[in-house]
Amino acid sequence: MFAHNKRLQYTVRVSTPNPGLANLMLEQFGGPQGELAAAMRYFTQAVSDDDPGRKDMLFDIATEELSHLEIIGHIVVMLNKGAKGALAEGTQAEGELYRSITGAGNDSHVTQVLYGAGAPLVNSAGVPWTSAYIDTIGDPTADLRSNIAAEARAKLVYERLISLTDDPGVREALGFLMTREIAHQKSFEKALYSIEPNFPPGKLPGDPRFDSTYFSLSEGEAAEQRGSWNQGEQWRYASQREAFNPADGGTGEASVNLSDAQAMAIQRLAERTASNPDTNPRTGAELGSDGSAARAGG
Amino acid sequence: MFAHNKRLQYTVRVSTPNPGLANLMLEQFGGPQGELAAAMRYFTQAVSDDDPGRKDMLFDIATEELSHLEIIGHIVVMLNKGAKGALAEGTQAEGELYRSITGAGNDSHVTQVLYGAGAPLVNSAGVPWTSAYIDTIGDPTADLRSNIAAEARAKLVYERLISLTDDPGVREALGFLMTREIAHQKSFEKALYSIEPNFPPGKLPGDPRFDSTYFSLSEGEAAEQRGSWNQGEQWRYASQREAFNPADGGTGEASVNLSDAQAMAIQRLAERTASNPDTNPRTGAELGSDGSAARAGG
Amino acid sequence: MFAHNKRLQYTVRVSTPNPGLANLMLEQFGGPQGELAAAMRYFTQAVSDDDPGRKDMLFDIATEELSHLEIIGHIVVMLNKGAKGALAEGTQAEGELYRSITGAGNDSHVTQVLYGAGAPLVNSAGVPWTSAYIDTIGDPTADLRSNIAAEARAKLVYERLISLTDDPGVREALGFLMTREIAHQKSFEKALYSIEPNFPPGKLPGDPRFDSTYFSLSEGEAAEQRGSWNQGEQWRYASQREAFNPADGGTGEASVNLSDAQAMAIQRLAERTASNPDTNPRTGAELGSDGSAARAGG
Amino acid sequence: MFAHNKRLQYTVRVSTPNPGLANLMLEQFGGPQGELAAAMRYFTQAVSDDDPGRKDMLFDIATEELSHLEIIGHIVVMLNKGAKGALAEGTQAEGELYRSITGAGNDSHVTQVLYGAGAPLVNSAGVPWTSAYIDTIGDPTADLRSNIAAEARAKLVYERLISLTDDPGVREALGFLMTREIAHQKSFEKALYSIEPNFPPGKLPGDPRFDSTYFSLSEGEAAEQRGSWNQGEQWRYASQREAFNPADGGTGEASVNLSDAQAMAIQRLAERTASNPDTNPRTGAELGSDGSAARAGG
Amino acid sequence: MFAHNKRLQYTVRVSTPNPGLANLMLEQFGGPQGELAAAMRYFTQAVSDDDPGRKDMLFDIATEELSHLEIIGHIVVMLNKGAKGALAEGTQAEGELYRSITGAGNDSHVTQVLYGAGAPLVNSAGVPWTSAYIDTIGDPTADLRSNIAAEARAKLVYERLISLTDDPGVREALGFLMTREIAHQKSFEKALYSIEPNFPPGKLPGDPRFDSTYFSLSEGEAAEQRGSWNQGEQWRYASQREAFNPADGGTGEASVNLSDAQAMAIQRLAERTASNPDTNPRTGAELGSDGSAARAGG
Amino acid sequence: MFAHNKRLQYTVRVSTPNPGLANLMLEQFGGPQGELAAAMRYFTQAVSDDDPGRKDMLFDIATEELSHLEIIGHIVVMLNKGAKGALAEGTQAEGELYRSITGAGNDSHVTQVLYGAGAPLVNSAGVPWTSAYIDTIGDPTADLRSNIAAEARAKLVYERLISLTDDPGVREALGFLMTREIAHQKSFEKALYSIEPNFPPGKLPGDPRFDSTYFSLSEGEAAEQRGSWNQGEQWRYASQREAFNPADGGTGEASVNLSDAQAMAIQRLAERTASNPDTNPRTGAELGSDGSAARAGG
Repeated sequence: MFAHNKRLQYTVRVSTPNPGLANLMLEQFGGPQGELAAAMRYFTQAVSDDDPGRKDMLFDIATEELSHLEIIGHIVVMLNKGAKGALAEGTQAEGELYRSITGAGNDSHVTQVLYGAGAPLVNSAGVPWTSAYIDTIGDPTADLRSNIAAEARAKLVYERLISLTDDPGVREALGFLMTREIAHQKSFEKALYSIEPNFPPGKLPGDPRFDSTYFSLSEGEAAEQRGSWNQGEQWRYASQREAFNPADGGTGEASVNLSDAQAMAIQRLAERTASNPDTNPRTGAELGSDGSAARAGG
Repeated sequence: MFAHNKRLQYTVRVSTPNPGLANLMLEQFGGPQGELAAAMRYFTQAVSDDDPGRKDMLFDIATEELSHLEIIGHIVVMLNKGAKGALAEGTQAEGELYRSITGAGNDSHVTQVLYGAGAPLVNSAGVPWTSAYIDTIGDPTADLRSNIAAEARAKLVYERLISLTDDPGVREALGFLMTREIAHQKSFEKALYSIEPNFPPGKLPGDPRFDSTYFSLSEGEAAEQRGSWNQGEQWRYASQREAFNPADGGTGEASVNLSDAQAMAIQRLAERTASNPDTNPRTGAELGSDGSAARAGG
Repeated sequence: MFAHNKRLQYTVRVSTPNPGLANLMLEQFGGPQGELAAAMRYFTQAVSDDDPGRKDMLFDIATEELSHLEIIGHIVVMLNKGAKGALAEGTQAEGELYRSITGAGNDSHVTQVLYGAGAPLVNSAGVPWTSAYIDTIGDPTADLRSNIAAEARAKLVYERLISLTDDPGVREALGFLMTREIAHQKSFEKALYSIEPNFPPGKLPGDPRFDSTYFSLSEGEAAEQRGSWNQGEQWRYASQREAFNPADGGTGEASVNLSDAQAMAIQRLAERTASNPDTNPRTGAELGSDGSAARAGG
Repeated sequence: MFAHNKRLQYTVRVSTPNPGLANLMLEQFGGPQGELAAAMRYFTQAVSDDDPGRKDMLFDIATEELSHLEIIGHIVVMLNKGAKGALAEGTQAEGELYRSITGAGNDSHVTQVLYGAGAPLVNSAGVPWTSAYIDTIGDPTADLRSNIAAEARAKLVYERLISLTDDPGVREALGFLMTREIAHQKSFEKALYSIEPNFPPGKLPGDPRFDSTYFSLSEGEAAEQRGSWNQGEQWRYASQREAFNPADGGTGEASVNLSDAQAMAIQRLAERTASNPDTNPRTGAELGSDGSAARAGG
Repeated sequence: MFAHNKRLQYTVRVSTPNPGLANLMLEQFGGPQGELAAAMRYFTQAVSDDDPGRKDMLFDIATEELSHLEIIGHIVVMLNKGAKGALAEGTQAEGELYRSITGAGNDSHVTQVLYGAGAPLVNSAGVPWTSAYIDTIGDPTADLRSNIAAEARAKLVYERLISLTDDPGVREALGFLMTREIAHQKSFEKALYSIEPNFPPGKLPGDPRFDSTYFSLSEGEAAEQRGSWNQGEQWRYASQREAFNPADGGTGEASVNLSDAQAMAIQRLAERTASNPDTNPRTGAELGSDGSAARAGG
Repeated sequence: MFAHNKRLQYTVRVSTPNPGLANLMLEQFGGPQGELAAAMRYFTQAVSDDDPGRKDMLFDIATEELSHLEIIGHIVVMLNKGAKGALAEGTQAEGELYRSITGAGNDSHVTQVLYGAGAPLVNSAGVPWTSAYIDTIGDPTADLRSNIAAEARAKLVYERLISLTDDPGVREALGFLMTREIAHQKSFEKALYSIEPNFPPGKLPGDPRFDSTYFSLSEGEAAEQRGSWNQGEQWRYASQREAFNPADGGTGEASVNLSDAQAMAIQRLAERTASNPDTNPRTGAELGSDGSAARAGG
């Protein structure tokens, strides 16, 4: 059950409206690394997790992300506030309004025309938010790793947004939001390592024939590159020459046992759609490649 | 530059056609945790990374994932092979064909009718693959964490698919694919920790006022849950009472400085669309809630 | 700013696990008429609305919808709980597990395999939630109407779900959720009619030549159908014969003034891609319609 | 069955090509509030409605919306006509063409490069049209409300587009289209109230314990806001203190009855993935937070 | 401008309701090869084409496809008609209704619950229609080829649907629709070859060094396969050994000229995120792979 | 099974960074006509095709398209390289960085902020790639036509990109890629016509009553347009007057046989939701159209 307080978790002081900057901020409102994705990622995990400590943590952080969604939404709304009245009340001449919406340094026309200078759940390209961004799969050893990665990505996008504005109030609020992603990542890391063991994720062990082999499949650029990710005693290094072979030592073919009726139907299909390699048919491209193609009636 | 060999990286021996099982396998062909997502995640990172070792590793693994895509695709095609001929050649009576496509234990009708019993890039629900599944953002300290998490998720989905089939050839091939996800996760872990430092991700440091605070925002279920993710000397624990306040000690309000013209336009808009709290207007719901609504002409 | 309490807004008592029913319930979790759509519709409006009463109402209801999302999520999780352990721990034989996931009356395989028997933000077909479902455009005379309609739709989908289950605990919780949609619709109706005037929506008046005309464009089924939507003194009724003419009395053509250079480029393009109506060219279809097509070398 | 006349329903006279403006117009061609969404919303309702009067009206208006789609499409094509020839025929120097496509006041590059200066079914951000925009659910008391809201939204978007251009021919055609949305809204209103009763929508009544309660869940901003949407004799007003409790007076917990085998599997899963609250594990973040992390071989 | 007649272009006589079959029919209503895609593909081309004959043909066929959309929609609605009343009026017991909606041979639950047994613009998997299905790019030598291919695909899907039903009225109507795709393909073929020349499509000629080379990049399965697509005097056949080299004879590297400042920034980035190949760092996977990982405080 | 060589199939020499041009190039990386769509179109066909020659060709070309994807990806990365370091290292002042990312001639902000100046699988509008772009349906007589059309479209988009840049290295690489589309189209044409017959596609013949009729449904623009697509002995031309009638000579109605219970439920539904044509109800629009609407308490 949720409750709300109209005070924001962090005070937002915007110096001056800037619809172009508002548009960039949408990345963290309705973008793939934004706060709705974060809130819903943790909320869906919280709902189905039975571990009391983890469930509590997931609800704590999901709830905080909703408050972050609210902060970034208000930044967007404040940055759009100058444009909102002009558009709704028609206080600018048509040409001026057009230029202010489509001008240089400003890709905000979608937000203005379609969303009325509000805060829509789209990214800075205007692409609608989709739960395809959420990678929850219902296993904590996988989901916590997903959360760690998601916090890292969100931290980076905030870092980039901070680099793009010199409005001190916006920078300050973004700095708070960025920092909280660091704190959340730390919590998720602790929660992951509180499951012992947590690697490999899930329950089934790997096949020891293949779990420490590195297949070198990309050649070129002078020598092969080696590092701890493919060398040392924990790895067996298979060169491209070796790796470009079936790993099981078999034929590398795919097969299935068909019933007689199935085999016969497949055979008929094959014959009906066979490509005849022994002809050189005249084609549409040849008909179309000059103006003197044989006429049907010719 | 790529080259191809028609032998698969792992031999696929399917016992008997089963379109319902084929449909489940699509999760790892065109699903969010599937092989195309993996291949494209690493390929896009490889293309833009300048570190020679990491670039090599990313191309190696991206290339292998394409070969995995081919394996899982062939499993799908083999499992569908019985249905393919029957559908294309019409060798079954209509009713029988309908039942075989829509019957219990079989949600394969989309694959059959729309995709001709092939291997389409959709998940087991028929949802088209989208690059929204790919979370590459172009920073290695974030992207490698994303890769680690993605391998963990893919491992889990393979584990679930293995649990669902008793076809030994399918289980064997899935076991290979599952194991390779473990090996890849190990490589990505090594590559991440070969960047020193790699935490916090990116370049900007966090704000020390907020990077070690845990906001307890979800109450209930007896006592608050504590663990390494929110207790100990590395954390400051803020209770819900405290946390439900602006973190900066400010008013928690959002503000922006408007020009006079902007402020006036906003004011006009506010007045025009004001909701009057002092009336009790008759509404559409009231008009519609009984059959004796006042008539326009009444 | 949000806070959370782990008690649900309504107690959920599920009689027995039923993954097929869980799957249907997803309509109101991650479906177009579901609770996330409701919460985000009102939340985005609340963030950008400046009218204090309306803003308060929108936050109140948005917050409640988040609590509804949590209720329906827990219904899903409870209905899936039997399957969750079996899948994760492999406590059933493969064939049995396969049948339980894909069997009749059960389209839950996506939820099981991909989402680990959790509560994903997808509808009952497995289609990911998208903010394209949200129709907020940033004007209260339009948005409140959208909210009224959205509550009506959500009420109907709950009504259908109630008709589909005989689990008394599920029916009771769904009944609560359905009823709250009625209450919300009533609030939104009051808020709409508290704006005076609210019709036509927005600021610009309509053109009196066209705002009371009804164009009868579909003929057939004996006589034309008339009713208050197209008859009476408030309407001018244009028959199909009349309506199938340009409404402005003009030519019904589209034109633009081009510069000479633009006109010349268009002319060149037209000539280059002109279709010659005076030939009867031999086509690819004709080449392909028999086995004796003229050969390129023939 | 449909027939077509090449004259438009309203004559389109564009003064001068303007690809940037063409791009904005796409909102009403392939955008969420645009004419295809309108036509298909009413068409799908018409196809399944059995009430003769309503079915006739829905076909009438669906047919008119197709004609509107054609008008707005021709506006787009006329505005793009200057660019079309230049692009296809290469009549401008490369740099000039690049600037004309990507320059200030012009976000038309997608339309030009991908769609050849035609009229694609995308919105002004280039987002493809999706039937997720259509909210038809097959009940007239809900669908007519959706139609009313949709017409209100479309009217607003036309109003904004009119504010953005000073081309008199474009303004005139947009004014016609905007006005017709008003007329359609009036028809849908009449049709809704011709169903008696129409509130609550659908068939099942609400639960009288909950259908007139207003839960005040958002506090702050001085006093609570009251108005006809939450005060008066028709409402019971529950304060946040009260509202932040299970509405049914129960425990607010979710429960399900599991079989012994199900319970045991869940128990096993819980144990295997338990988070240990009593340890303080070293984490990946700690490994990565400095350059002196313990080495595997160290 | 469009007009409508309520008679269908082809009389639809359905023997008996069958929601499962209705669901399959959705492929041609809201699926990628369905009638909306066809109508909109040709309509968008018609709107922007200036050639009078082609424009007329495109409008003729677009208009007919709308009538086909109406036919297939009515087939869906008739097949769903039995379920519609039962669901809306609750005339079946809950369990019975649940079974009738989710039972074997019937994946129609989405259509029923979400769309009220109507005809929604989704495919048979419930995936919403998207204009991403439309491949119009605004050049007739490309678009007509797209149309030819689209008609071929639609013909095949109708063929498959015919094979699946034994309802004579449904088969008859589907047979009409399938046949019309053949007729349309013939028209588009004629229109394509009426442009002389039409190959290569567009205006720019190909580079003669590369336009007749066939790169054999996939080896295996005994001998290389040859046929008219890669052999004969019109082809130069490059073996895998040759083809796996840069086609331009260059280094196959990518390069760009950077300013000093740009080069320095890239250098800094490279150093900051360098992976150190000379260490063997302890990783998160190693921490997590056993229960005795070093403790932070240890 | 795939292998990789880090040399590109064509050497890429970019003169100078240009993020705006990089953004346009994304059309062929992650756009609908781009190289991933091509590679996956042919790869999915190759996996399921049993004809050895066609399968070999499809794998050859799919593999080459992956190499093209790599080329266009490297063009994007090189064009973005100047921006990448500046963004990641913060070497520009905030305002300058903002302007360089959002300035005129540059719609690259999404690529910069969200994707870190990499090569994401989106088109130039930032729309994520989707497999909805792939039209493979598993029949070679349809799929080869789809391939021919796809190559034609891709050729055109390359042609447009070439027209937009004066960077000689970019033009040269694009010229190679464009030319290869021509070569691929020629191969697919040969492969199509090597199937005899290949028209009509699929197996079922058309109905001779309807396969040569042309329905003229769009009137206007002086005389009807005639050409080989609708005139000559191979066509029967039906005028609009004739065509606007049911083609089967029937009533043009849709019907279904319902059981008594089904008919009764439908009847009840019709009565409950009937629109009463004989009233003129007061509506919400009327309530809202002035400020003096009757009050509920009035």
